[in-house]
Amino acid sequence: MSLKFDLIATCGNARRGCVHTAHGTFQTPAFMAVGTAATVKALTMDMVRDTGTEVILGNTYHLMMRPGGDLVEKMGGLHKFSGWHGPILTDSGGFQVMSLSNLVKMKEEGVEFTSHIDGGVKHFLRPEDSVHIQYQLDSNITMVLDECLHLPTTYERAEKNVDMVTRWAQRSRDAFVNRDGYGIFGIVQGADFPDLRKKSAKALTAIDFDGYAIGGLAVGEPQNVMFDMIATTTPLLPTDKPRYLMGVGTPLDILGAVERGIDMFDCVMPTRAGRTAQAFTRHGTLNMKNARFRDDDAPIDDKCACPACKLSRAYIHHLIKCNEILGATLLTQHNLWFYQDLMRDIRTSIEQGTFSQFKSDFIEKYTSGK
Amino acid sequence: MSLKFDLIATCGNARRGCVHTAHGTFQTPAFMAVGTAATVKALTMDMVRDTGTEVILGNTYHLMMRPGGDLVEKMGGLHKFSGWHGPILTDSGGFQVMSLSNLVKMKEEGVEFTSHIDGGVKHFLRPEDSVHIQYQLDSNITMVLDECLHLPTTYERAEKNVDMVTRWAQRSRDAFVNRDGYGIFGIVQGADFPDLRKKSAKALTAIDFDGYAIGGLAVGEPQNVMFDMIATTTPLLPTDKPRYLMGVGTPLDILGAVERGIDMFDCVMPTRAGRTAQAFTRHGTLNMKNARFRDDDAPIDDKCACPACKLSRAYIHHLIKCNEILGATLLTQHNLWFYQDLMRDIRTSIEQGTFSQFKSDFIEKYTSGK
Repeated sequence: MSLKFDLIATCGNARRGCVHTAHGTFQTPAFMAVGTAATVKALTMDMVRDTGTEVILGNTYHLMMRPGGDLVEKMGGLHKFSGWHGPILTDSGGFQVMSLSNLVKMKEEGVEFTSHIDGGVKHFLRPEDSVHIQYQLDSNITMVLDECLHLPTTYERAEKNVDMVTRWAQRSRDAFVNRDGYGIFGIVQGADFPDLRKKSAKALTAIDFDGYAIGGLAVGEPQNVMFDMIATTTPLLPTDKPRYLMGVGTPLDILGAVERGIDMFDCVMPTRAGRTAQAFTRHGTLNMKNARFRDDDAPIDDKCACPACKLSRAYIHHLIKCNEILGATLLTQHNLWFYQDLMRDIRTSIEQGTFSQFKSDFIEKYTSGK
Repeated sequence: MSLKFDLIATCGNARRGCVHTAHGTFQTPAFMAVGTAATVKALTMDMVRDTGTEVILGNTYHLMMRPGGDLVEKMGGLHKFSGWHGPILTDSGGFQVMSLSNLVKMKEEGVEFTSHIDGGVKHFLRPEDSVHIQYQLDSNITMVLDECLHLPTTYERAEKNVDMVTRWAQRSRDAFVNRDGYGIFGIVQGADFPDLRKKSAKALTAIDFDGYAIGGLAVGEPQNVMFDMIATTTPLLPTDKPRYLMGVGTPLDILGAVERGIDMFDCVMPTRAGRTAQAFTRHGTLNMKNARFRDDDAPIDDKCACPACKLSRAYIHHLIKCNEILGATLLTQHNLWFYQDLMRDIRTSIEQGTFSQFKSDFIEKYTSGK
């Protein structure tokens, strides 16, 4: 048995489930904290756990550059190396190769690139290499290597992309070593063309993965286009496998995607915002640099149980004004806690059959600021 | 009753005691973590507590500049503002006025200075102002304002200094508001002149403080000069009051000072080192940037029970190479844990009458690196 997924309840197209891995179970819909370089930035792994996070995402690109797959394998895998003993999903590295490195050439065989991290050494990453590095990292969920197009793009370009990443998906599947509690996900591409999304979904389900991601969204398109592509794709995916929307998103993106049948999410938003003085609250976001918080003795969000919310906005504001590390740490933990509260509330509302009501209540408060 | 000090045991001149404050008790010999701007840099207050730290030091200079004594008072004092609910000692601000600001003029009335923090506004700090700000901060232990001379200095300069800070000490004592569980400490000055140290100690004990600090040491003089000045001063101080050596120091400084009758210490060393990749161990310090730690799967110190020592040197090295905040956080917590382990061991050895043996064993391991 590779990876076990239990579907516990549904509410419309929204799904409540859990995924069992060799390193424990996580509840879905799940938000994965982004732990780029074997650390969720500014937090200890204990702090990450305290937020309610059950699964984290590691970035294969960053880890292959520093400290390298060989080193992490030698150190006993990413769980032991980082001290995160729960489930880990790793991306393929493809997205960061294209967004962070100097892309040299995209070939049928793989992708050639250089990186500033090691002073411009030439690297070649094939689907098999990516799967192997993720094996070295001991990732519970391996993602296939793909090519993520930016929107808008042409139909011709998008079709070529779907065809190639389908072949790459097959090669990734073939390279994957089956083990109990480990799985590999395919990634549906097809830009904003419904028939290409269908073509991609059909081809990937034929290969048979342990879960299916939707990639190439939240890359510049309007939210309704993203929602349309999700709604087009999810009915074509098997109901007994988890579905993961990559790199998404805002609280409202997540609610709309859950409504359309998505089970898993990851995004740098809560953690990055925490390092740039932004705080998520049930009434919208706050810029904690703002002078109006100087003598505000209320917590960031009075409904939040996180450590930062035992302190005042005035204190958080003070830490940020003084460039104190603790400001980034407390805000990051708060934001992640906020996201995990949202996921907990989503899961409860699906179980209780009240997801739609929860969603509209949340959006009303969040967008009105009241 | 202002501040209660119990002397529990002695071993030679080394003393084992405890200090009772309105915000709880701390055991001595005690190491106070430096919490400059209402935060022990890079740590949450929970993490500080976990190290075994029982009392922290706040810097009046930083806090008066940002966020200001009025603001902290309005927010309910430094304990509530920062979330540190244990004992707090604050310095007078004098040392930082002289080391960090542009000193404009030292007068009998007080000290005039400007600071880069608020764009060069002129400030005037009198002994009464410093005591008042520390009152606003709700500090459990207030320090008198003094002038800290750098060594070497002349006898004439040092004598003038002793005479003036004695008058300032009396003014500080007079301005201090007596409350249960709060106290004020005088500061013995006198540079490296034994008879001036004696003169200062005699004058201060005549004023009658709740504890006595030794200031103006660890400012450039050799360690043996510092030890001589301590040994000259402590016999002149009352045995029923705590004694605090300001701004000291290395593990070896602390051992030598405890041996000469000191009860309290503060130093930025463990926390600052944690932000610059230095790790304290029972076998000396390590520079965690060093490439030899790249694949070292041992913990920083295998005798240490801190969270960082559940991870490998390789992981800490990786975090530092990637400039990850967590590297500073884990190393800071480790270093503070190391210091508090040292203080625990010192206290136990005094209780057991084995301090001298403990000291020589510690120094042997620490300096040999074995």
